[in-house]
Amino acid sequence: MLRSPLFHTDPELSHTCAYLSESSGGLTLTPDRMNSDHNAVYIKTNLFDPIKYGLDASFRLTNFTELKGCGCKVPRDQLLKLLENLNEAPADRGNSHQNGQHNGAKQRGTNGEKSAYDSSLSAIGVGLDSCLIPLRHKGLYLVQTTDFFYPLVDDPYLMGKITCANVLSDIYAMGVTDCDNLLMILATSQKFTPKERDIIMPLIIQGFKDCAAEAGTSVNGGQTVINPWVTIGGTASAVVRSEDVIMPEDAEIGDVLVLTKPLGTQIAVNAHQWLTTNPERAEKVRAIVPDESIRQAYRRAMYSMTRLNRNAARLMHQFSAHAATDVTGFGLFGHAENLVRNQHNSVNFVIHNLPIIANMAVVSRTFPGFGLLQGNSAESSGGLLVCLPRDRAAGYIEELRRLDGTPAWIIGTVEEGDRRVVWSEKMRVIEVPSGDEDLTAFCGI
Amino acid sequence: MLRSPLFHTDPELSHTCAYLSESSGGLTLTPDRMNSDHNAVYIKTNLFDPIKYGLDASFRLTNFTELKGCGCKVPRDQLLKLLENLNEAPADRGNSHQNGQHNGAKQRGTNGEKSAYDSSLSAIGVGLDSCLIPLRHKGLYLVQTTDFFYPLVDDPYLMGKITCANVLSDIYAMGVTDCDNLLMILATSQKFTPKERDIIMPLIIQGFKDCAAEAGTSVNGGQTVINPWVTIGGTASAVVRSEDVIMPEDAEIGDVLVLTKPLGTQIAVNAHQWLTTNPERAEKVRAIVPDESIRQAYRRAMYSMTRLNRNAARLMHQFSAHAATDVTGFGLFGHAENLVRNQHNSVNFVIHNLPIIANMAVVSRTFPGFGLLQGNSAESSGGLLVCLPRDRAAGYIEELRRLDGTPAWIIGTVEEGDRRVVWSEKMRVIEVPSGDEDLTAFCGI
Repeated sequence: MLRSPLFHTDPELSHTCAYLSESSGGLTLTPDRMNSDHNAVYIKTNLFDPIKYGLDASFRLTNFTELKGCGCKVPRDQLLKLLENLNEAPADRGNSHQNGQHNGAKQRGTNGEKSAYDSSLSAIGVGLDSCLIPLRHKGLYLVQTTDFFYPLVDDPYLMGKITCANVLSDIYAMGVTDCDNLLMILATSQKFTPKERDIIMPLIIQGFKDCAAEAGTSVNGGQTVINPWVTIGGTASAVVRSEDVIMPEDAEIGDVLVLTKPLGTQIAVNAHQWLTTNPERAEKVRAIVPDESIRQAYRRAMYSMTRLNRNAARLMHQFSAHAATDVTGFGLFGHAENLVRNQHNSVNFVIHNLPIIANMAVVSRTFPGFGLLQGNSAESSGGLLVCLPRDRAAGYIEELRRLDGTPAWIIGTVEEGDRRVVWSEKMRVIEVPSGDEDLTAFCGI
Repeated sequence: MLRSPLFHTDPELSHTCAYLSESSGGLTLTPDRMNSDHNAVYIKTNLFDPIKYGLDASFRLTNFTELKGCGCKVPRDQLLKLLENLNEAPADRGNSHQNGQHNGAKQRGTNGEKSAYDSSLSAIGVGLDSCLIPLRHKGLYLVQTTDFFYPLVDDPYLMGKITCANVLSDIYAMGVTDCDNLLMILATSQKFTPKERDIIMPLIIQGFKDCAAEAGTSVNGGQTVINPWVTIGGTASAVVRSEDVIMPEDAEIGDVLVLTKPLGTQIAVNAHQWLTTNPERAEKVRAIVPDESIRQAYRRAMYSMTRLNRNAARLMHQFSAHAATDVTGFGLFGHAENLVRNQHNSVNFVIHNLPIIANMAVVSRTFPGFGLLQGNSAESSGGLLVCLPRDRAAGYIEELRRLDGTPAWIIGTVEEGDRRVVWSEKMRVIEVPSGDEDLTAFCGI
């Protein structure tokens, strides 16, 4: 796989990072690590400045929506109600489960059938992260997901990257590491001036496209419309064999749960926006943490959200993962619940630790509506929650750090139970450093 | 293929239509014709009545957007500008053309390469209706499209059907008749009351799902968010062999152009809305045609938009079609232009006839902004524009009428040229009847 240049807007950065990676201590960096480095450098040095593009200094991409990122999802209980008539057994494809729950919950027991096409995997609908459809071509499956949302960071280029990483994450959660095609879903805002539109939308598209290239895939289609709010998303598809997929259903008693990105992205992007747009809330935030800490958390969140879960998915195979999901709009608790309900074995997921971007736990105590400490706060382009044999978890975390340069955490255990998520009474918050020195560490400076 | 019941809201209709089809003159009706019948009966007898559902009598789905159907597309020239940086040659998949034009124009000559995977078809990006990606699995291709828009009719169930028919149409235009999976794209409006949301969204979903069943496929995923405007759409995917695809590139001098649905849907749905929401425009319309004619045109448009282009695609194989596209947001002229630019041969498409839903041509003379007579008016879920050998066109039209019960028209010819669309100076408008007796004819009463 060749790598394409990443920063058309600032070609010098490529050289900088190539140099940095050569001097970063003899590790054999993968292209993905290289891209992580690029993202960290970009966030530190090159964030979008509206004035540089001839736009008004007050221009903020996040002002072109009222809901942010995966926080725009219809709440889970309402969604299940809306989609309930999609739960009927399909009439003409006995092998395919049309539960249509759009990442909603799916009870174990509805997907136990074998395919009429003599496939070794059972079809699944949308109860979890991607659907899996046995194809007419023997031994092959279509794995597919779609996701779209609204801007949650002000840098349009990074917003494109975050969107693409978020879409791909759903197939990575199934252990599928190679995407065959991306379609892009776009809406430009009615409220953009023509100039804003012509500057912002191409940057978003470029970010999406560069992230696709990082993931070894490409964008070959899409739809662009006009909408009140800027909308961005995509569809990821892969045609795979059964051995390419890790079905999210084989958690065993004694396994541990690993999370590959910190929580708190939603509160970080909101708190950052309040600093300039909501004096009342800004004052409350400032009473707890200094502005610079919020900005650091925002940068750390951006870094985290642009990072692909692809290495996390590759390592799922290497370290014999039993099941996984990605943590997005329904929060850690919601996605853990979807996953545990889908298990063959009678297990519970017991959560002991919450790795949270530094200072966001304390901010969330002042703004309990996010539900961060209850696992209910939406995450955008969050990490994988991976169920691993106890003796493989340390190796998985170590190798992921080597490849991506970032930490992962054991946050819980798989115990005998009745397919529920148990929130430990002695929940420990792990403060995940967000200082510039930490971003620096990622890019090996 | 088994058929699923179509009208969960009114099960008696199934019996009615089954009876009707048995008495309809000895034709061996296909399931598709059966579905056409259902749609016609539904439109005549069972249109959405907000009062019946306990909603306010003034409730109109089309009030939950400011742009209608495929009329929400970003204009073609602006879109090409926005997407121009997706036109670069791909860096890491030499076989795949990332022109990313989202149904925009693509110049011939950018897709002449053969696949690195030893495939017999060249990859195409999104210059035309669907993208086509050679897969890692020899001899197989992923054909894929995504499309979403806003409500353009007031009946939520039919709106779901129209959306699904519109999405599938893009793969039918490539001659692909079997869809392997649909994903659904949904946004519920911020402005809905909870009651409106819980009544309207499930009806839309049901319509989408029933149309998928009519097409022999199913819905296995999607995303649902909150947005100012109701948004509906989907992604259609098929994994196919080369013989399943008719590449849109082999028009020959001497061919004729057949259109399988009448034009004028956009002006019909707008004029219908003006009758109740825009007194000034309503008055202008009433000066030309009576209200009932507008309502008839609206019903005819709904009937047309809910009809699948699947039989039209099947017959493309049987009658040796050389190329096709579907007519949607860029209007007849725009899509014809995209298609002619993609031809191997140096040809022009010369358009002589415009089949238009009755009375819409005269209304469009008072509202020239739609550009209907110039072929610029957006169509939603429009017909296929099929390029056929001259001696096969009559057979194609006749067989399509037998299967779908509806007319198609030879609207132009393929002549020597430089890949332009030529608009005949003696353009003839064909008034396509829209009276209730015509809908009745479709369903064989």
